[in-house]
Amino acid sequence: MKIFVVGLGPGSLEDMTIRAYRALKQSDVITGYTVYIDLIKERFEEKEFVSTPMRKEEQRCILAIEEAKKGKTVSLVCSGDAGVYGMAGLLYQIAQDYKDIEVEVVPGVTAACSGAAVLGAPLGHDFAIISLSDLLTPWPQIEKRLAAAASADFAICLYNPSSKNRADYLQKACDIILDFQPPELICGAARNIGREGESYQIMSLSQLRNTKVDMYTTVFIGNSNTLRLKDRMITPRGYKNV
Amino acid sequence: MKIFVVGLGPGSLEDMTIRAYRALKQSDVITGYTVYIDLIKERFEEKEFVSTPMRKEEQRCILAIEEAKKGKTVSLVCSGDAGVYGMAGLLYQIAQDYKDIEVEVVPGVTAACSGAAVLGAPLGHDFAIISLSDLLTPWPQIEKRLAAAASADFAICLYNPSSKNRADYLQKACDIILDFQPPELICGAARNIGREGESYQIMSLSQLRNTKVDMYTTVFIGNSNTLRLKDRMITPRGYKNV
Repeated sequence: MKIFVVGLGPGSLEDMTIRAYRALKQSDVITGYTVYIDLIKERFEEKEFVSTPMRKEEQRCILAIEEAKKGKTVSLVCSGDAGVYGMAGLLYQIAQDYKDIEVEVVPGVTAACSGAAVLGAPLGHDFAIISLSDLLTPWPQIEKRLAAAASADFAICLYNPSSKNRADYLQKACDIILDFQPPELICGAARNIGREGESYQIMSLSQLRNTKVDMYTTVFIGNSNTLRLKDRMITPRGYKNV
Repeated sequence: MKIFVVGLGPGSLEDMTIRAYRALKQSDVITGYTVYIDLIKERFEEKEFVSTPMRKEEQRCILAIEEAKKGKTVSLVCSGDAGVYGMAGLLYQIAQDYKDIEVEVVPGVTAACSGAAVLGAPLGHDFAIISLSDLLTPWPQIEKRLAAAASADFAICLYNPSSKNRADYLQKACDIILDFQPPELICGAARNIGREGESYQIMSLSQLRNTKVDMYTTVFIGNSNTLRLKDRMITPRGYKNV
């Protein structure tokens, strides 16, 4: 009884790995959050799809396990990677109470990497990924991480930079980073990565502070070495000249 | 005149994205570090291959540009992602001096994600990626980042944890992390990810400190919430219970 936890990458079929594609093809049932299911549905028409709404992650895992217990091969899909704020950990936690469930995690291209490719190469050196969602993490912990990352000149990639209940979180995050980095620090934002309407912007940290982004956006904050090179954002691989 | 900078993923053909596969198929010339070229050579027999040794990154970019200037489509390949300590940034920097060179970055699954999938889900929450190579970064800067990441309870993924000239760097890194995290913190190491002889270990931070790793290993350090669940390393998605 097997469950694949599959990272789909940013959204287009072509940014999926060959292994992810094969796992889906091999599955009887594909389950996941409605939006991600819609991204792949037409390519895997012959499959049985079971989608669940956002924030029902535990239910989604149990559903996958119930299907697997019927002897079906199941894929539980995540956008980006299967592990980075993904379902892999939760499924392992829940599946331990069930016998004979084999879990295989199929990694994918996370938004830090797919968004970086759109902007140029903003994460070419050490970086931190921080989610601004305080749904499962207390906000003071998020603030602490922002300050720590900025103080050590990490490039930073922000996931979930905004939602309707947290319209000012990106501004708050930029204010913390501004305690350690200059207002002219090179930053960027990529939207609808790998999907229709893909776009990006490069701007200064002070401009980013006053920019409204939505939940389809991934934000990139440079380190002190980050350059704007024509229309690209580049963080060199080191601090010494090659 | 087009150059693709292609992230190959961890090594096996199946962990490559469909877009990476197509970029290689579409190319006349594939260039890169010898070891990565060897990983894919037999799958793309009809191509012209040009490999260069390690540490000749600038030369590799110029070589790719020279081939593109002849009117050929060129892929410059990187292991993992094309941007994370990859060649994308350097190519953009060098290509700006040449006219009519179009660069497309094709992202891939970086070792943080592919190694995490082998271990379970060690990077399920905010994390920092730090390279322990001091070839292009002064060691004090690396130490500063290790301390900052550990002090804010980031999960941490270490790239380049060892090489023959830096046999004790992982030990030094663990000592810094031990200033902030307990010796029993759950850690892991994945070796030969996606390649023959793939293996992993889960251990405590104090055990990791006394473990010898090689350059084919990626190291994972948990946060205060990280669990060992049977034979898996899991960092839950949040600090609040779902």
